[in-house]
Amino acid sequence: MGTAAEREPRQERSRATRARLLEAAVTRLAESGVAGATVGAVAETAGVSRGAAQHHFPTREDLYLAVMRHVLDSRGEELRRRIATVPEGPGRTEAVVQMAVDAFTGEDFRAALQLWAAAANDPALRESILPMEERVGRELHRAAVGLLGADESRPGVREAVQATLDLARGLGLANLLTDDSARRRRIVRQWAGMLDAVLTG
Amino acid sequence: MGTAAEREPRQERSRATRARLLEAAVTRLAESGVAGATVGAVAETAGVSRGAAQHHFPTREDLYLAVMRHVLDSRGEELRRRIATVPEGPGRTEAVVQMAVDAFTGEDFRAALQLWAAAANDPALRESILPMEERVGRELHRAAVGLLGADESRPGVREAVQATLDLARGLGLANLLTDDSARRRRIVRQWAGMLDAVLTG
Repeated sequence: MGTAAEREPRQERSRATRARLLEAAVTRLAESGVAGATVGAVAETAGVSRGAAQHHFPTREDLYLAVMRHVLDSRGEELRRRIATVPEGPGRTEAVVQMAVDAFTGEDFRAALQLWAAAANDPALRESILPMEERVGRELHRAAVGLLGADESRPGVREAVQATLDLARGLGLANLLTDDSARRRRIVRQWAGMLDAVLTG
Repeated sequence: MGTAAEREPRQERSRATRARLLEAAVTRLAESGVAGATVGAVAETAGVSRGAAQHHFPTREDLYLAVMRHVLDSRGEELRRRIATVPEGPGRTEAVVQMAVDAFTGEDFRAALQLWAAAANDPALRESILPMEERVGRELHRAAVGLLGADESRPGVREAVQATLDLARGLGLANLLTDDSARRRRIVRQWAGMLDAVLTG
């Protein structure tokens, strides 16, 4: 143990290394799936020694769980940033639907999808991932309800908001193999109109 | 080359072997992902010699493409069977939405999802799978339009039908790690009501 002054930069370096490993793991997962995202391969991508990587993530499962948490957290942060930009008045519902849809695209989503696919065949990974997913699902739902000013005591409103997130997930999956953004825009607009009718019904 | 009479049973046996290999491949993919679905592992599950399996599917990619075609074809057959059972009158829209949602569950969907995840990182596989996906997407859409009696010349109708299939895909993904059927039923009912409002607008 060094002095407090010596420990500080060491902890900072350690945090920076961990963050670099997580970013590299997201990239490896999105680009090569779990087969290409061993701790060793991730260390190489991050430019970190294998020993240092194993210090942070002794097993592949440790790494995957940390990646899942990292992806969910950064998705949450991104949402909080964007919430401030959602316009009032007409167009608000469409902006909220678009925000939900955007949460299921990009490198983070592609990495998460590889982990979901792996978890489907790995009971231990599934048991660890599920509670995280459920927590984030609840948060996303709560955020959408708040942003939409949705009154969930009215029949159908809760299900319509849930369906919005399921639609977003489905559009994300449709976008995995091809650029689906033009079609997605039209569907978002249409869905927002249908959702508005339920909310203001 | 034997006589015609000798060839006939040989061809039949060959078809039966191929079908057994494809079923085994679906099971292996759904249960173990692509890592557990080598031609050798599939041959073992099917109770077929490795040589015979390699005769039908020289490479893993040949096997995956055949599996994808098999899954899409059997999904199509299942849909055609069920179309006859869709009730007329009220409840028809909900039955059609339920049918779309059911097309994205089960072992076939889980196997297809593993192939999509693999194709995301494998340009050759993606290029082969995409045209199949697009064809089936168009067929599904056409079937839904026909069953719903949807008039796509009216604004929003086309997008609402497309959204139904995207929602179904998203619900399938949500169901991958956990049994989501109770929530799904409520969403199907709600969405059917919203879709009806657009169709009869």
